[in-house]
Amino acid sequence: MEQVRQIIEGALASGQNILDEYHSKKVLAAYDVPVVSERLTADLPGALDAAGKLGFPVVLKVCGSAVAHKTELNLVETNIATPEALENAFNRLRPAAEEAKAAILVQKMVSGKRELVLGMSRDPVFGPCVMLGLGGIFTEVLSDVSFRVAPIDPDDAREMMSELKASRLLGPFRGMAAVDTEVLARCLVSLGRLAVEHPEIKEIDINPAMIEDGRPVAVDALVVLAKAESAPDEAPSKEKLHKLFSPGSVAVIGASSTPGKSGNDVVKNILANDFAGELFLVNPRGGEILGKKVYKSIAELPEGIDQAIIILPAKANPQTIRDCKARGIGTVVMAAGGFAEVDDSGLALQQETLEAIRETGVRALGPNTSGHISTPANYTSSFFPLGPIPKGTVSYIAQTGNFATHTMRYIMSAEHYGVARVIGMGNKLDIEESELLEYLTEDPETLAIFMYLESIKYPRRFLKAASLAARKKPLIMLKGGASPEGAGAAVAHTAALAADDRIIDGALKQAGVVRIYKYSQLFQVAKALSRMPLPKGNRVSFSAPSGAMLVCLTDLCRRELDLQVPQFAEHTRERLQDISPPYIRMRNPVDIWPAATVSGVEFAYGEAIAAGLADPNIDAVVSVLMLTDETGIPSYDFLVDLARKYPDKPLYITFSGQKEHMETAKAYLEPRGIPTFHLIEEAFEVLDILCRCQKGLNRPV
Amino acid sequence: MEQVRQIIEGALASGQNILDEYHSKKVLAAYDVPVVSERLTADLPGALDAAGKLGFPVVLKVCGSAVAHKTELNLVETNIATPEALENAFNRLRPAAEEAKAAILVQKMVSGKRELVLGMSRDPVFGPCVMLGLGGIFTEVLSDVSFRVAPIDPDDAREMMSELKASRLLGPFRGMAAVDTEVLARCLVSLGRLAVEHPEIKEIDINPAMIEDGRPVAVDALVVLAKAESAPDEAPSKEKLHKLFSPGSVAVIGASSTPGKSGNDVVKNILANDFAGELFLVNPRGGEILGKKVYKSIAELPEGIDQAIIILPAKANPQTIRDCKARGIGTVVMAAGGFAEVDDSGLALQQETLEAIRETGVRALGPNTSGHISTPANYTSSFFPLGPIPKGTVSYIAQTGNFATHTMRYIMSAEHYGVARVIGMGNKLDIEESELLEYLTEDPETLAIFMYLESIKYPRRFLKAASLAARKKPLIMLKGGASPEGAGAAVAHTAALAADDRIIDGALKQAGVVRIYKYSQLFQVAKALSRMPLPKGNRVSFSAPSGAMLVCLTDLCRRELDLQVPQFAEHTRERLQDISPPYIRMRNPVDIWPAATVSGVEFAYGEAIAAGLADPNIDAVVSVLMLTDETGIPSYDFLVDLARKYPDKPLYITFSGQKEHMETAKAYLEPRGIPTFHLIEEAFEVLDILCRCQKGLNRPV
Repeated sequence: MEQVRQIIEGALASGQNILDEYHSKKVLAAYDVPVVSERLTADLPGALDAAGKLGFPVVLKVCGSAVAHKTELNLVETNIATPEALENAFNRLRPAAEEAKAAILVQKMVSGKRELVLGMSRDPVFGPCVMLGLGGIFTEVLSDVSFRVAPIDPDDAREMMSELKASRLLGPFRGMAAVDTEVLARCLVSLGRLAVEHPEIKEIDINPAMIEDGRPVAVDALVVLAKAESAPDEAPSKEKLHKLFSPGSVAVIGASSTPGKSGNDVVKNILANDFAGELFLVNPRGGEILGKKVYKSIAELPEGIDQAIIILPAKANPQTIRDCKARGIGTVVMAAGGFAEVDDSGLALQQETLEAIRETGVRALGPNTSGHISTPANYTSSFFPLGPIPKGTVSYIAQTGNFATHTMRYIMSAEHYGVARVIGMGNKLDIEESELLEYLTEDPETLAIFMYLESIKYPRRFLKAASLAARKKPLIMLKGGASPEGAGAAVAHTAALAADDRIIDGALKQAGVVRIYKYSQLFQVAKALSRMPLPKGNRVSFSAPSGAMLVCLTDLCRRELDLQVPQFAEHTRERLQDISPPYIRMRNPVDIWPAATVSGVEFAYGEAIAAGLADPNIDAVVSVLMLTDETGIPSYDFLVDLARKYPDKPLYITFSGQKEHMETAKAYLEPRGIPTFHLIEEAFEVLDILCRCQKGLNRPV
Repeated sequence: MEQVRQIIEGALASGQNILDEYHSKKVLAAYDVPVVSERLTADLPGALDAAGKLGFPVVLKVCGSAVAHKTELNLVETNIATPEALENAFNRLRPAAEEAKAAILVQKMVSGKRELVLGMSRDPVFGPCVMLGLGGIFTEVLSDVSFRVAPIDPDDAREMMSELKASRLLGPFRGMAAVDTEVLARCLVSLGRLAVEHPEIKEIDINPAMIEDGRPVAVDALVVLAKAESAPDEAPSKEKLHKLFSPGSVAVIGASSTPGKSGNDVVKNILANDFAGELFLVNPRGGEILGKKVYKSIAELPEGIDQAIIILPAKANPQTIRDCKARGIGTVVMAAGGFAEVDDSGLALQQETLEAIRETGVRALGPNTSGHISTPANYTSSFFPLGPIPKGTVSYIAQTGNFATHTMRYIMSAEHYGVARVIGMGNKLDIEESELLEYLTEDPETLAIFMYLESIKYPRRFLKAASLAARKKPLIMLKGGASPEGAGAAVAHTAALAADDRIIDGALKQAGVVRIYKYSQLFQVAKALSRMPLPKGNRVSFSAPSGAMLVCLTDLCRRELDLQVPQFAEHTRERLQDISPPYIRMRNPVDIWPAATVSGVEFAYGEAIAAGLADPNIDAVVSVLMLTDETGIPSYDFLVDLARKYPDKPLYITFSGQKEHMETAKAYLEPRGIPTFHLIEEAFEVLDILCRCQKGLNRPV
């Protein structure tokens, strides 16, 4: 390590910002990265001596910090087999070496058909990242690379390897030995350590690392240096968010007596949810609103109220924060828009607001938020009229205003599940995703966490928090701005900075976060999670009234998703055979039509679903219910009973047949704990996501 | 060509089933495929002479029909730079050459960093196929290959190139010249011609073809021979299907007076659809059914009825076919199951039925079909009670019984569109997909064709038919059995033979068929096609009440789909700016919330949608309607009016907010011609599929 420090300091002292190939490899070798055998020399006798010691064939390269792109400059001679050839090569390279004040590097020629690229770079958002890719021209053409945020451990490194499209190349292949993944993992871990322990190293390229007898060997390497920048990534430690989610008393600043106004709706919401704490209303006009006394100013309020909801124009917010603090209010929610998301004067106002927050030490949600929900406290700061909000076990952290508005209305009216905490972060001047995630990780009322983010304020703190959260409860994230255009819209929306999506992808995988790509899955997956246990594995049984559906759904499971459709245990199969016409061979997936024809819809579906729920080979059951007048509409209680009898496996229902019966079934089943899905494919897509959550929970700590 | 014939005949005559490398390349060269310069020799002086003429460096290979895997057998010496090295190499290879009774091939050493694999193989389903892949170990690891069915034209060849994941490698790359795609296309076309003109050629491998100065050169090649098999792929030419779809008179054999029985429901269906032709019922009991006279036997029927629907047990079908023919009935629909899909005795029965069909020349649909629908003739043979079936412009060819049953019920009750022809093919003993496709291509009532197939009976005829159809109307296909497990289920379902999915994929692309992978898209896409014009391009405008939705939908368009989200023309933008609060910069996609707040939901949405429909930069418009009591429920007529005003661009609606309003809007809008979608992503997925249809229509003939 001392050697590395000396090399770096020496280079920086002499004004170099890159290390030459020889010293780059010295640095790597000091961190246990295997490098090619090589010697540096200035003259021909030295080169001949080196080649003799290394053994022919050898490679000659001009080596100096000014010649980073040797191959393009034609400053490399490979496959030199004899002393004569060495002399020719040396003489050809000598003038260029002298001109560049560079030495000549004599390397043992490494033979191997597989090459990798390893590297480290510092991402503006996530900081140092480690990269692994398939080498040669294919890195560039196929972009077959994987990123992780440094530091990484050997498990991360192995995940990077398995993530490569060409990961098969790392196994034994065409008579070539399998790559020693332990050594390769060590190399990647070392790159992460180098980044963390030497902030002056800006970038590292190992290109290529050849695989020789299964061992990766750095054949060329480049270390780029820069003055270390201090990255103040960690947010200041803060007061806990208890008073945001469980306030004992709340003041609405800007309460209104006019129905339809935000200052009126917020009060109605609080009353509709039976908030048990004290509620104070403030409006310069005084009087009464909804039967409650109105204070004319904040100064009139009693001391020590826990939280204030500020429903005032943007420009009033900085002073209001100070006024609140003066009465001992330590937590505020700012509803107003018109800040940085709008224009430059909004940006200035946002800066003023931030100063007020810093000066007072008040904890602030928003501005530009439609509020938050905390059903365990019977509380919401939303100004969109929602009425009583059903309690549930999933929580949302959302970088958008619409969660506590029409989206909540959609959840309540269409999906029949409740929520624990919902936070619309708005412009997240103070309270942001990392702290909220830490809070929800410890929150006993929250059993699963969904996030919609367009930017990440403190990326490394966030990854640490996500990594802890994902091992405790399902953590599912939709990242807005995954495409360049999407990122464009994100900037317009919340002044978000989109990090390179590939790095985000690696970072989220590393943390165990399950990434989704569809907005509607924020609700479909939450519904499934709210109502049913997580599947313990990815083995699914399903039944449908059509062989074509069975074929297409099997295709979907295997082709698009990572779900298995295994055979039933023999006793399950026999049982199903008993209830089926003898000429049908019953198996998984189950064609329900023959049995339904013989024994009726309810009996046939009941048996098929029970078979899957009871079978040890199966982790989850999906059934496509056929609902038509002619084939008969069952009483749906048999499904509720089955779910109760087998509480450890998820059961999802979807439909074919008549729309009106589907709607009735949905309206009956969902409030009774059985999630249903409009499209038959949705149930499987949701199951696939939840299997990934289960894997996240199982990750080693 | 004569030379090729001689080489092949000579080899076959001497009992060889592979051509040695030298003669393999002679065959290729005769078809204009560039091959490496090379000479065949038996002794060292000959080798030295050859090398002198070719120029060093050269390659030596043992060359004989018994040494197909030279590299693995270590029978190749590369990069030979001097006569001395040549002598050493020759002496090393000589014993192996003598043992194998082989000669020595002297080749000019080809240098180039890019290598391709080209080939031809005969697929058991589609016959000869041409293959192009990225060479080296990456063919195997990444499976970066593309197939087409021979013969191919240069357009097909270019499509194959662009389909490679690493297609960028074919362009100018890292200082290397772009690959001469004209020459490469010619090579691929030649492989197809070789396959067609020389049925004795079973397989061809060109591995590798090196790219030298941008030109592909066959460096190694292998031609495998086999006795040509005659493949009787074409179906016998048959009578047209007019009487299947437009019968003037129909007999139901096995009509029943018992409600709920198939023989009763089929009669009710025919009556409910106001079939204008004559209807005859046959049942040994005689009497009346639903007020119609019942004949006691087929023999009693008048002569010359157009079509018979046979609702009798499986075993009665062969004789019934003969009885029908005896009364001049030329077309039958067989409803019974219990044939090859069940067991061996069913298979025997199916064979008997096939004999009856052949013997009589009767045209037969089924067996094991739930029937077909032909709304232009007010006719259906379905025995699933459907009532009046709405008329429409899309037709379905389905290899499953459920289309004319609960699936039709779903379409009618949930998706609000009608159909033209629907054919459940069942076991397709006689009438199959190719002939049906040819019929629907010419059918003026059918404006778009959807297919669900698990197997293809006459693959090459099918491709020809599909190729013609796809240029005339949208042709969309779901192929069941795309995964190995799906194929397993397909075998169980209809005794289908699954062809290699990659070849199917290439063949369908070649024909211009748009392949889909989700069952539910058979209906969502059909709904959109039934109600709206095809988009002329892939540029979409959309509006939503949430910035987060805009971001996520933009991500979806660019990341998962091939849709563009371009900017509006300036005058459109200005108009939108006028109706919006000044601090919002209006653009595509449109955040509707600010304008809706200022001007009301109906006005804001109306303006945003009209902007997209009128804008020359936009091909299609999607709007996420916000429907909540508080923000106001518009009268949906403004959407109907907009669609009427801009009939040339598709408009799709999807929702956020309250479920009950969404359902009301759907029920109002869809019968009035505006398709709606349950999930916001669905509208975009459908649009993407229809853009691919538009491309299919534009393919050169």
